[in-house]
Amino acid sequence: MPGKLKAFHEFRSAMNEKLLSKGNLQLKRFFNLDSQVYVDGALPGKTKELMGLVASAVLRCDDCITYHMIQCADLGVTDEEFFETFNVTLIVGGSITIPHIRRAVETLEEIRASEKRKRDKGEMGKRRDGKRRRDEKGE
Amino acid sequence: MPGKLKAFHEFRSAMNEKLLSKGNLQLKRFFNLDSQVYVDGALPGKTKELMGLVASAVLRCDDCITYHMIQCADLGVTDEEFFETFNVTLIVGGSITIPHIRRAVETLEEIRASEKRKRDKGEMGKRRDGKRRRDEKGE
Amino acid sequence: MPGKLKAFHEFRSAMNEKLLSKGNLQLKRFFNLDSQVYVDGALPGKTKELMGLVASAVLRCDDCITYHMIQCADLGVTDEEFFETFNVTLIVGGSITIPHIRRAVETLEEIRASEKRKRDKGEMGKRRDGKRRRDEKGE
Amino acid sequence: MPGKLKAFHEFRSAMNEKLLSKGNLQLKRFFNLDSQVYVDGALPGKTKELMGLVASAVLRCDDCITYHMIQCADLGVTDEEFFETFNVTLIVGGSITIPHIRRAVETLEEIRASEKRKRDKGEMGKRRDGKRRRDEKGE
Amino acid sequence: MPGKLKAFHEFRSAMNEKLLSKGNLQLKRFFNLDSQVYVDGALPGKTKELMGLVASAVLRCDDCITYHMIQCADLGVTDEEFFETFNVTLIVGGSITIPHIRRAVETLEEIRASEKRKRDKGEMGKRRDGKRRRDEKGE
Amino acid sequence: MPGKLKAFHEFRSAMNEKLLSKGNLQLKRFFNLDSQVYVDGALPGKTKELMGLVASAVLRCDDCITYHMIQCADLGVTDEEFFETFNVTLIVGGSITIPHIRRAVETLEEIRASEKRKRDKGEMGKRRDGKRRRDEKGE
Repeated sequence: MPGKLKAFHEFRSAMNEKLLSKGNLQLKRFFNLDSQVYVDGALPGKTKELMGLVASAVLRCDDCITYHMIQCADLGVTDEEFFETFNVTLIVGGSITIPHIRRAVETLEEIRASEKRKRDKGEMGKRRDGKRRRDEKGE
Repeated sequence: MPGKLKAFHEFRSAMNEKLLSKGNLQLKRFFNLDSQVYVDGALPGKTKELMGLVASAVLRCDDCITYHMIQCADLGVTDEEFFETFNVTLIVGGSITIPHIRRAVETLEEIRASEKRKRDKGEMGKRRDGKRRRDEKGE
Repeated sequence: MPGKLKAFHEFRSAMNEKLLSKGNLQLKRFFNLDSQVYVDGALPGKTKELMGLVASAVLRCDDCITYHMIQCADLGVTDEEFFETFNVTLIVGGSITIPHIRRAVETLEEIRASEKRKRDKGEMGKRRDGKRRRDEKGE
Repeated sequence: MPGKLKAFHEFRSAMNEKLLSKGNLQLKRFFNLDSQVYVDGALPGKTKELMGLVASAVLRCDDCITYHMIQCADLGVTDEEFFETFNVTLIVGGSITIPHIRRAVETLEEIRASEKRKRDKGEMGKRRDGKRRRDEKGE
Repeated sequence: MPGKLKAFHEFRSAMNEKLLSKGNLQLKRFFNLDSQVYVDGALPGKTKELMGLVASAVLRCDDCITYHMIQCADLGVTDEEFFETFNVTLIVGGSITIPHIRRAVETLEEIRASEKRKRDKGEMGKRRDGKRRRDEKGE
Repeated sequence: MPGKLKAFHEFRSAMNEKLLSKGNLQLKRFFNLDSQVYVDGALPGKTKELMGLVASAVLRCDDCITYHMIQCADLGVTDEEFFETFNVTLIVGGSITIPHIRRAVETLEEIRASEKRKRDKGEMGKRRDGKRRRDEKGE
């Protein structure tokens, strides 16, 4: 896994752990609620992750963008779909979102490189069935 | 068509006309670009309108919310789908979005009432085929 | 109760009811969580309502400002304390918050007028004990 | 003076008066500082009012937009200059600013109509010299 | 003092010095006003620093969060109080604030470690009296 | 060219290239439109770049601030003019903009140092005529 993505995952995990161990009940409830919102419902989980991405992008939070891009890639979002999402971001949010989109393009490259490494190692076998992959995600 | 929606349409049309007649070339180009972004592409138009709605909602612009809700309803978005969109809004954007969601619920009622009036008048015949409806929208 | 405050309460109640009856489980959970956050804890409820007010004010949401001002007034926040809260708002959020502060000053007048009417009608008897009043609020 | 502009001026004056009479010293100092920032300096006052307008527009505050448009019009900003300012707003801030630009176009019409009424009444005689007009503004 | 906090203090001091030496009178007045706002008044300084923290957190500015956390810690804010402040942030501002809260948890650890080092060196003697500590802060 | 500015240019160029090669037509159109907005028109390009700067500053995007500062410096904006722009930023956007202004002051130093190095190398000869310089910018 390339540098930036790895650092993101490590810091995120370490701090979420501290946040949840030191934080109070309400903080935990918010985190639970946060993960429930994106599961399949009337709208498919993929659509909701794309919504989470576009919301993060117009609100201009790089970490949130990275997080939702990882989720989206896991759910099979293609490069073309990512770029159309950036289009909606750009038109709604304006040129002020461009630096975030530039960083998102870099993140996309890291995600694809990470996927390639996993495929090369044969780790993609278990994922051939998209549906199972999705079930695993919550663990 | 109920009061609020009608007033929205009338003011929007009148002012857009003035904006485009008095405004310069770049303003027109932005407006053109704005409508191109939401057509079917790698992602379906409906998904992009939902993205436009969630982006408008977390950025908290009532008129933009109303606009994208009308587009979404035209593309067949159900009440359940609207409420899941409000969920994503609420979790990403926080309680500060609640007053906008309350007004969106009122807008949804007006949209459904307007649809009912049209059905009662027999105007829904031409729309039975969702696809044609979508083609008409751009005109 | 003067016009603006009354209209705020009525629309808010009517729409919250619809929101919660039509909305899904996650929406209800968010609303529950929202009310839990402001109860007495390590920080007194009053401090947290003032925080809710200042957060609403720098994010510039009039309805949220009105809501937290009503809660604050119920918890005994004085005019001087409100104005110091507006100071923090103004210095952190800048002159862009001024129109919201102007409307908040109008809201404060309506709240004080409403309190006076209740006192004149003898309704303040049950509230003389601030503590009980606070207990009642959650009902 | 047409309805919307008149209502804006009246509410603004009434509430600013209350704000400054009830508010504390720091609030007064902020208001003083606010008016000092836009006077002629290394940059002309007109450029700074245009900056105030574009800042208000991308931050999407209708009252602030109206306020700076009135100041700009007083300093001789033309329709073409206003529309180029809206262009910068639109490109930096995105389509989320469009409803505010629509309302700004309506405000511009009211401002021009108000100017015409004053010219018709012969009140424009004293303003033929732009410079004097600027001196009057502080009163 | 750990790395991040030290770097924050050094850059902040160096740049504020340049800002105030090169900047004009209005910039200096704003900075003066900024520090006046948080002193004890109708509301205690601690409450106002917590307000400054929550305002910084919902507006999502890491440096402002760090600054107000340092001030809050100096005024005796406990971990529990910090976490309740993060709760208000999270519920008002939504999940988009989570990355900032994660970084705030890291900052809190650095602040506590720095306090511990000072206690171990015996520097805490002069601070045993919280009140004096507060008086010193303004210097 | 000092470190931060150089890194900014290199990352920006590399990612814009990827963005435009991988991105779709609408993304390219937005980028074209973005550069058209700031050319001389009813308002001079310099005024519009200053507007772009103040808009970027109140929306608090460091990369956008850096970009517009470079453009402004190319168009001859003086230190005094930059600091008055920061004043407008500070008063409209509040203390939450201060960390961005601190970083902008550092950027300004890098820009001036870069200009000095070019002058020392005799590269400033071609630029003595400000007007030609401006024509070159679009290439």
